Amino acid sequence: MSDTHEETRGRRRGGGAEARRERRRGGGQQALRYITRKVPLYEVLDEEGLALIEANADLVLEEIGIEFREDAEALKLWKEAGADVRGERVRFPRGLCRSLIATAPKVFTQHARNPERSVQIGGNATVFAPVYGPPFIRNLDEGRRYATIEDFRNFVKLAYVAPAIHHSGGTVCEPVDLPVNKRHLDMVYSHIRYSDKPFMGSVTHPQRAEDSVTMARMVFGEDFVEQNCVLINLINANSPMVFDSTMLGALKVYARANQATIITPFILAGAMSPVTVAGTLTQVLAEVLAGAAFAQLVRPGAPVVFGCFASSISMQSGAPTFGTPEPSLVSYGAAQLARRLGIPFRTGGSLCASKIADAQAAYESANTLNGTVLAGTNFVLHAAGWLEGGLASGYEKFVMDCDQLAMQQRFCEGVDLSENGQALSAIREVGPGSHYLGCAHTQANFETAFYRSTIADNNSFEQWLAEGEKRADERANQLWKQWLADYEAPPLDPGIDEALNEFMAKKKASMPDAFA
Amino acid sequence: MSDTHEETRGRRRGGGAEARRERRRGGGQQALRYITRKVPLYEVLDEEGLALIEANADLVLEEIGIEFREDAEALKLWKEAGADVRGERVRFPRGLCRSLIATAPKVFTQHARNPERSVQIGGNATVFAPVYGPPFIRNLDEGRRYATIEDFRNFVKLAYVAPAIHHSGGTVCEPVDLPVNKRHLDMVYSHIRYSDKPFMGSVTHPQRAEDSVTMARMVFGEDFVEQNCVLINLINANSPMVFDSTMLGALKVYARANQATIITPFILAGAMSPVTVAGTLTQVLAEVLAGAAFAQLVRPGAPVVFGCFASSISMQSGAPTFGTPEPSLVSYGAAQLARRLGIPFRTGGSLCASKIADAQAAYESANTLNGTVLAGTNFVLHAAGWLEGGLASGYEKFVMDCDQLAMQQRFCEGVDLSENGQALSAIREVGPGSHYLGCAHTQANFETAFYRSTIADNNSFEQWLAEGEKRADERANQLWKQWLADYEAPPLDPGIDEALNEFMAKKKASMPDAFA
Repeated sequence: MSDTHEETRGRRRGGGAEARRERRRGGGQQALRYITRKVPLYEVLDEEGLALIEANADLVLEEIGIEFREDAEALKLWKEAGADVRGERVRFPRGLCRSLIATAPKVFTQHARNPERSVQIGGNATVFAPVYGPPFIRNLDEGRRYATIEDFRNFVKLAYVAPAIHHSGGTVCEPVDLPVNKRHLDMVYSHIRYSDKPFMGSVTHPQRAEDSVTMARMVFGEDFVEQNCVLINLINANSPMVFDSTMLGALKVYARANQATIITPFILAGAMSPVTVAGTLTQVLAEVLAGAAFAQLVRPGAPVVFGCFASSISMQSGAPTFGTPEPSLVSYGAAQLARRLGIPFRTGGSLCASKIADAQAAYESANTLNGTVLAGTNFVLHAAGWLEGGLASGYEKFVMDCDQLAMQQRFCEGVDLSENGQALSAIREVGPGSHYLGCAHTQANFETAFYRSTIADNNSFEQWLAEGEKRADERANQLWKQWLADYEAPPLDPGIDEALNEFMAKKKASMPDAFA
Repeated sequence: MSDTHEETRGRRRGGGAEARRERRRGGGQQALRYITRKVPLYEVLDEEGLALIEANADLVLEEIGIEFREDAEALKLWKEAGADVRGERVRFPRGLCRSLIATAPKVFTQHARNPERSVQIGGNATVFAPVYGPPFIRNLDEGRRYATIEDFRNFVKLAYVAPAIHHSGGTVCEPVDLPVNKRHLDMVYSHIRYSDKPFMGSVTHPQRAEDSVTMARMVFGEDFVEQNCVLINLINANSPMVFDSTMLGALKVYARANQATIITPFILAGAMSPVTVAGTLTQVLAEVLAGAAFAQLVRPGAPVVFGCFASSISMQSGAPTFGTPEPSLVSYGAAQLARRLGIPFRTGGSLCASKIADAQAAYESANTLNGTVLAGTNFVLHAAGWLEGGLASGYEKFVMDCDQLAMQQRFCEGVDLSENGQALSAIREVGPGSHYLGCAHTQANFETAFYRSTIADNNSFEQWLAEGEKRADERANQLWKQWLADYEAPPLDPGIDEALNEFMAKKKASMPDAFA
C-alpha cells in the first residue's frame, strides 16, 4: 500500500518551491483545482419533457403553493412581491419566481482563505465537497460510534489532504461530544484552522448562521465578505412544499450577508414526493423556484444554488435506497432544469445505504457519482465518506471515495487530440506483433499515462495472497492513517487565530451548555 | 434475504399461464427482454475528433497495414480484393475496408431456441451476456479453484434464472476438468440443454467452430441457420495489428455459415496499444476495419460486430487495471466510431481487477458498466461474474452484477411523462407538509414504483446488526444458492437432445484426450 501511495506521490509531483510547500502541507499529494469539465453533459429529458415539467411546477406554485412556516417576515416579503398569501400558504402568480431569480448569478466564485483554493460554482465547473451531517463515524478499528470533534478535525484534515476534494464542506460529522448550541463554533473554526479550502456555515439556528458570518468576516475582512461569497450554506426544503422557520432564518442571514445558499428539497421519493421521476422533478422545481426566489427577495443578487437530494424509499420498509435508477433520472433531469433556470446545480455525491464499505456501498456510490458528474453538477456535497444513508461518516469509505473522485476528475479532461495524444509516432514505431511497453512515446508519457488508483490492488493473485488477501477497505484503513500522519496544517495568521479563539470563548461563556 | 427475493418475485409477476411457466422455469423471476434504450447516448468526441481518428486509422491501414498470420487463404482473398500484400502484411488502399463493410448488416437478430429469448444486436438494443473465459471460479465457500463443467453448468443456470441477463454467453468459465479438444462440445451442449437463451460458439480451433455450427444446425435446422444468425462468436485481434490463424480459422467458419463474429481488439493500453486514448482508438478502429472487412470478404452480408475490449496497464507492474477513466473514454469513443461505421458495437461489462467481490470490484464494475450502457453498447460480454481481470468467474459477483444489470435496464426506460408519470394528482392530494406514503397514486403504483435490489440491505443499522452484520457478498452467497435451488431446465425436444448426445459421443470417441 505504501508503495501505491508513493506512486501517486510521484505522479502528481510538479516542480517549484510552491509545489514542494504544497506537498508538505498536503501529506505528499498536490491538490487539484476544481474540475473544469471538458466532456459533454448527459441529459435525459428533451425540450418537450422539460417544458411539461416546468409548466406543471408553475401549476403547483399557482394552485397549491408553498408554506413558509413561522416566519412573519417571509410572508410579508412575499405579499409585497405580489404573491397570494393565505395563512402560511404562499401561492405564486405565474412567472413571479422566475422573474425574481433573474437577479441571481449564473456563476460565482466561493473564495477560500488560500486564493488557489477558491472555487467556481456554476458553468462547467464541478466542486467536490465531503459528506455532510452524520452523527456517527465508522472505521475498521472501532466499528460504529458517535462522532466527536476529534473526528470532525480528522475529516477536515483528510479532505485537506485529498487531491480531488476541492472544498472542506460543512458538518463532516456531528461532534456530539460538544453542546448543540456551541458546537458550530468549533466546526467553523476547524475548517478555518485545519484547512485552507472553502467551507460551509452553520444552518441549525439563525444565530449560528450569524456566528458563521462573523467568523468568516474575521478571516476575510468585512468589506470582502460584503462583496464576495466566502460561505456556501445548505438550506433544505421540508418537502413536500414547506420551508420551516429554522431554514428560513438561516437563509435570511446568509442572503443578507451576500453569502450563497443551496436550496435543496430533501427528497425520499415515495414519502416526500410522488413515486414517479416526473412527479418528483415537478415538486423539486416548484420548491426550488420558491426558495431561490425568496433568497432574491431578501437580497437581490445573493448567490443561490438549485439543490436536489434524490433518493427513493423501499416500498416495503420505507427505508431510503441509493444508487438505484430513479434517483439518477431525477438528478439528470434536475440538472437540466437548473441550467434552464440559469443558476448553479447541486446533487448527488457518493451516496449509499450500506452500513459498511463493502460492495453494496461501492456499487451505490459509483452509480450515484457517475450520474452526478455526467449531469454537470456544479457542487457535489457528500462526495466522500458517506455511509448508511448519511448516518455515518466512514474513514475507509472517505479515502476510497476520494480515489473515485480523482478518477472522475481525470475523466472530465476528456480525450487529448493533440499530436502527442494521437500517438501515430508510437503506432509507427511499434508496428504489428510487437508491444508498446518500451517505445519512445510510452516513455515520454510514463508519468502522466493512466490514472493510478490509491486503493485498487491490481497485482497478481499470488502477490495479493502473499500480502494477506486484503479487501479494499482494509487497504483503505492503512491509507487514511497514512494521510493523517502526513498531514501538516496550512499556515494561519496568528492574529486571526487569536481573534477567532477570543470570539468563540466569549460566545461560549455567554451560553449554558445544551445537549439537545 | 429470502424476503427480498420474494419482493422481486412479486414485482415481476405478470399474469397468465405462460408467465407462471416462465417463473417455474426461471427460479421465480420473469426474464426481461433485451434492452431497447429510450434514454440518449453519451458521446465524448465531436465531429472533428471522430474525423481525425478515422483519418489516422486509414493512415495506419495504408502505411503500416495489418498482419494476417499463417493463413494463405486470407492473404489470397485480400490480394484479390485489391490490397497490397507483402509476406503476411496486408496494406489497404484508402476506403477499401469501409466499402467492403458496407455489405454487413447494421442490425441483426440472434435467434434463441425459445423465440421469446431472441435478441436484437445493433440499433438501440443492448444485450447483456455473462463473463467469458475464466479458468478459475471463486465463491465464499471454496475460495478460488479451477473451474469444472459443473461450474459451467451452474453459471449457465444462473444466467438463465437472472432476469436481466439476455444471453447465455459462451465460455462462462473454462471447464478444465474436461480435455481441451473435447470440452467445447460439452460447453455448447450445456448452453442448449440448460438454457433457452441465445449463446456463443467455440473459437479455439476451426474444427471446434465447425462443431458448434453443426450442433446449432441440429437445434435450429440447416436451412434456418443458413439464413439466420443463431451463434455470435468472439474473434480477438492479436493487438497490435495482427490476426492469428486460430482466430482467422474460426472467423472463416462462422462467416461462411452466415453466423456473427465480434471483431475485438483485446487492448491493455500501454502494452497492446499506445498509452493515449486517441492513439488506442486509432489502432482499434484500424484493426476492426481490417477484421470486419475480412468477414465480408469471406461472405458478404455475414453479421459482424465492432468489438473493443478496453483496459489500461499499471505503468509500474504491467498489470491490467479496470474501471479507470481512460478505458471509459476509449469505450465511449469506440461506440461512436462503430455507429459511424454502421455496424453493432460490443464493449465493457462488469470488469474489475479485484480478486474478491469487495468494494474495489464494485467500484470498478459499476464504473465500467455505467459507461458501457450510456455509450449505447449493443452486446455486453462480461456483464456479470467477472473477477480478477477475467481470471475467475465469481458466484457471488455474478448475482451482485445481475442486480446492477436490472437497474441499468430500468434506467434505460427513461422518464415516464404520461399523466400517471407526471403525478399531479398525487401532488394535489398530498399538499404541503404531508407525505405520499398512503396516497392513491402511490398505492396505484406500488408494484412498479422504484427498482428493488436483490442484494442491497436498506434496513436500519439495528436490524442489520441483528441479522449478523452481513456484507453484500455474504448476502449474495445465499442468493446464488437460492437461484440454483429454484432452477428448472427449460424443455428441450428429446429427439434433438438425443441427436446432440449421439453427435458428441461420436466426436469424442474419434479423438484422444488432450489436456493442453
